[in-house]
Amino acid sequence: MGRWEPDAVGRLRAAALELFAEHGYEQTTVADIAERAGLTARTFFRHFPDKKEVLFQGSDGLQQAMVDALLAAPAGAGAMQAMAEALRAAAAYFGDIREFARRRRDVIAANAVLRERELSKLAALARALEQGLRERGIDPTDALLVAEAGTMVFRVAFEQWVARRERRGFDAIAQDLLWRLGGLSRER
Amino acid sequence: MGRWEPDAVGRLRAAALELFAEHGYEQTTVADIAERAGLTARTFFRHFPDKKEVLFQGSDGLQQAMVDALLAAPAGAGAMQAMAEALRAAAAYFGDIREFARRRRDVIAANAVLRERELSKLAALARALEQGLRERGIDPTDALLVAEAGTMVFRVAFEQWVARRERRGFDAIAQDLLWRLGGLSRER
Repeated sequence: MGRWEPDAVGRLRAAALELFAEHGYEQTTVADIAERAGLTARTFFRHFPDKKEVLFQGSDGLQQAMVDALLAAPAGAGAMQAMAEALRAAAAYFGDIREFARRRRDVIAANAVLRERELSKLAALARALEQGLRERGIDPTDALLVAEAGTMVFRVAFEQWVARRERRGFDAIAQDLLWRLGGLSRER
Repeated sequence: MGRWEPDAVGRLRAAALELFAEHGYEQTTVADIAERAGLTARTFFRHFPDKKEVLFQGSDGLQQAMVDALLAAPAGAGAMQAMAEALRAAAAYFGDIREFARRRRDVIAANAVLRERELSKLAALARALEQGLRERGIDPTDALLVAEAGTMVFRVAFEQWVARRERRGFDAIAQDLLWRLGGLSRER
């Protein structure tokens, strides 16, 4: 990451998404990506362990940011309130990557292996949130339920956020969904 | 399905699950299954289009039973109440197959292709429930949320139901989870 490669990660990511969209994920090689970015394959491997990680790097950081926020929620906060904080942290983590997230979504939707990888990342997120809720002293079954509900809200909010005509930010969408879920559950 | 093949479906299913557990799903052929069941491959194909369907046949019927129950809920019932009826219908549909479901779960957990198939069946269930809720006049975003929450409760209840030491029925587990989810959402 020396000065002779300004924003190598950003350039490699942009090049990869262009090529995946143009030729498909399977047909694109690391050499193609590096060439399009004006860099070498060696530079690619300094930043990513393999081609797939261009799409998935960052998901560990996202999970950690969500769990940290969940654990940092006020002591008196209930499980759903702590989950709201985790979703807020996801919004802050995403920042301004909506256009990247849209292109990434299209690439993943077109490839079964990537879809499975995405789902397994979501399952890992649910387990990490469940563990965080248990550390907050939440009953195990409640922790499981709230972690699954929160992960579902995260997934649905993400899908809405990357929809072509959506203008609201991730946080506004996620908090609206969580609020609606509360209202719907109250009806019973 | 003549009288000379009493309960061919049940015998083929039991034989398949035995063989999948003994040798693995990939290593088991339709001929193996038929032989173990004391039937012919031709009989197998009269009941199942392929090997995978031994595990997944019935999921369309389950989905239909759940959607039917959702649509048949009283006119004044809210979205979550209608979902509770759908889960009740799933319990009735399952009846006494817990031991089959346990063995099936183990087979699916061990095979990536089967796991993906199971997840795509769950996604299809969520879409069918969402459609049913929209037909009940539920707001589209609420229909999406309740369908996803209901499918999540279905999945978690199913996992608990097939856990080795679980003694409660599917309906008791699912209604408890839905009730808990309501209480947790109220906290906010």
